[in-house]
Amino acid sequence: MSEDYEIYQINNFTLQHGATLKEAKIAYKTYGQLNKDKTNAIVYPTWYSGRHWENEWLIGRDKALDPERYFIIVPNMLGNGLSSSPSNTPEPYNASHFPNVTVYDQVRAQHELVTKHFGIETLVAVIGWSMGAGQSFQWAVSYPEMVQRILPFCGSARTSEHNIVFLEAVKAAITTDAAFLQGDYQTQPTKGLRAAARVYAGWGFSQAFYWEQLYKKLGYASLEDFLVGFWEGFFLDDRDANNLLTMLWTWQHGNVGNTPGFNGDHEAALSSIKAKAIVMPAERDLYFPVDDEKYEVSFMQDAELRVIPGVWGHFAGAGMNEEDTAFIDAALRELLAR
Amino acid sequence: MSEDYEIYQINNFTLQHGATLKEAKIAYKTYGQLNKDKTNAIVYPTWYSGRHWENEWLIGRDKALDPERYFIIVPNMLGNGLSSSPSNTPEPYNASHFPNVTVYDQVRAQHELVTKHFGIETLVAVIGWSMGAGQSFQWAVSYPEMVQRILPFCGSARTSEHNIVFLEAVKAAITTDAAFLQGDYQTQPTKGLRAAARVYAGWGFSQAFYWEQLYKKLGYASLEDFLVGFWEGFFLDDRDANNLLTMLWTWQHGNVGNTPGFNGDHEAALSSIKAKAIVMPAERDLYFPVDDEKYEVSFMQDAELRVIPGVWGHFAGAGMNEEDTAFIDAALRELLAR
Repeated sequence: MSEDYEIYQINNFTLQHGATLKEAKIAYKTYGQLNKDKTNAIVYPTWYSGRHWENEWLIGRDKALDPERYFIIVPNMLGNGLSSSPSNTPEPYNASHFPNVTVYDQVRAQHELVTKHFGIETLVAVIGWSMGAGQSFQWAVSYPEMVQRILPFCGSARTSEHNIVFLEAVKAAITTDAAFLQGDYQTQPTKGLRAAARVYAGWGFSQAFYWEQLYKKLGYASLEDFLVGFWEGFFLDDRDANNLLTMLWTWQHGNVGNTPGFNGDHEAALSSIKAKAIVMPAERDLYFPVDDEKYEVSFMQDAELRVIPGVWGHFAGAGMNEEDTAFIDAALRELLAR
Repeated sequence: MSEDYEIYQINNFTLQHGATLKEAKIAYKTYGQLNKDKTNAIVYPTWYSGRHWENEWLIGRDKALDPERYFIIVPNMLGNGLSSSPSNTPEPYNASHFPNVTVYDQVRAQHELVTKHFGIETLVAVIGWSMGAGQSFQWAVSYPEMVQRILPFCGSARTSEHNIVFLEAVKAAITTDAAFLQGDYQTQPTKGLRAAARVYAGWGFSQAFYWEQLYKKLGYASLEDFLVGFWEGFFLDDRDANNLLTMLWTWQHGNVGNTPGFNGDHEAALSSIKAKAIVMPAERDLYFPVDDEKYEVSFMQDAELRVIPGVWGHFAGAGMNEEDTAFIDAALRELLAR
């Protein structure tokens, strides 16, 4: 965990669904130096509940995302607890009153940071895992002239109905806890957060991951140790119930088709993307299945589908095992050279 | 719903984990007539939360399970609310005090019904869906000389770790509701039951089922209509929280290897099966995946793996669509002719 990050403030930031944040704050961290031409920037947004330091596993001098070469900006999502969120916004938009934020809003805020604060007019790439993948697609749809490449991994441009159902379960787990108090809690509804963790556990890794007991490779002694030590720990690690529900709403409503001008037409929005893309679902991802990305890629002008093989499921994109990390890094290196 | 069923009582029924039910009651219904030789009986146990009338879709004069020909016994599982269960057992083993029941126990109780009450010494077949499949495997392991055929569909002989994790989420959803009161509720914890329904929803049908919005074929107008109308309705339809948790424990601990004599050796238990078998996982079942059944079949002496094709996932075996029902019925017809 680190607190060495910056805040960019946008005054009177009006969201797509109508609410206005008087002082929208984007917490971000950068890696490397922006060159004189301002032509070496890469944006790498965060994922559901993730913070910038949880993206760092893919950044390094030995990696495609080399800070000696690129200026890498990791903006934290609105709702993640560092950027404007239920947990840190003053009244009246505090806690459960925090407004609905779309992926489009997220990317528009990031675009202000990138263009107004840094004066950057072109991006080498936008990449991300999971909801970060969704933001990558959105960047390419919102700013087609600006984004040269995208590499969305384990995510989608539109949240599928099945994915919405999975998230309904996460939501139900949190809100079923009486201590949630309709979002007006003073202390976290930890029972609900632990239940949400158990919901997530079955989805995050594939059936085969559990069959092969790969959690032992991660240092957990037993299945229950993994459920408590990894999963419950994950949901209790400075997360906040309202924040999780805010990001969950964002996720459930993800759809590049809802970019102004596309009238909800997901396929048309995908067709409008000009960026070169490598779209990387994981072979056994249970909520961003390969079939969905095959479908999305079929509408894109210059996109390759490249499946991350193996049994880690969605968490193939979490930087938890060397093989998948190397696979993603290699694809990124290739894309950056195109 | 029907109440035209019988009760068979077993006095002082000692369970595998040590508790003794003074009056264990097996609720069952039969279809057709037992022939003079008592050689035409088929046992068709129920599934998680299912009741005998919810098995009837596969029984009929136009079906392989023809009551003109076979004597079909549908025993309700201990814990399902009709057979001895938390909800209907007097103190001291009432409600949350109801003991843990294994699949082995379930089948031993059914065996007493079949042999002592009906005097049946051979079974044409044991078949079942989901936990009913688990009981089919268990019958073949517990009574290898008695069971001529099994047709387990969408189930397994041992509950996988991933499946255990999915069930942890169902359990967490129910028990997170403060109204659950550690099982000492007077009225059902409906919030928890609804949350459990939402957990289940993502697992019961495949990603593609939702992608194709097949719930509309079932008469639901929208995704939310399906979640409330079908799923929450399912969990509120005279189910009981303690009953659900009792059956959940049974499911999580399913393993034919725990039959006395096998010392937990799942593979050895599978190898001991003498029954002819067609094992039928569904192509897109998310918690009883095809791979697991391929593995189990590899240890059996006379078993064929036959995958139910299509996108209905686990609920391919619920009798909800004609195509899957016809596929299962045809396999059953074939097996019965062997």
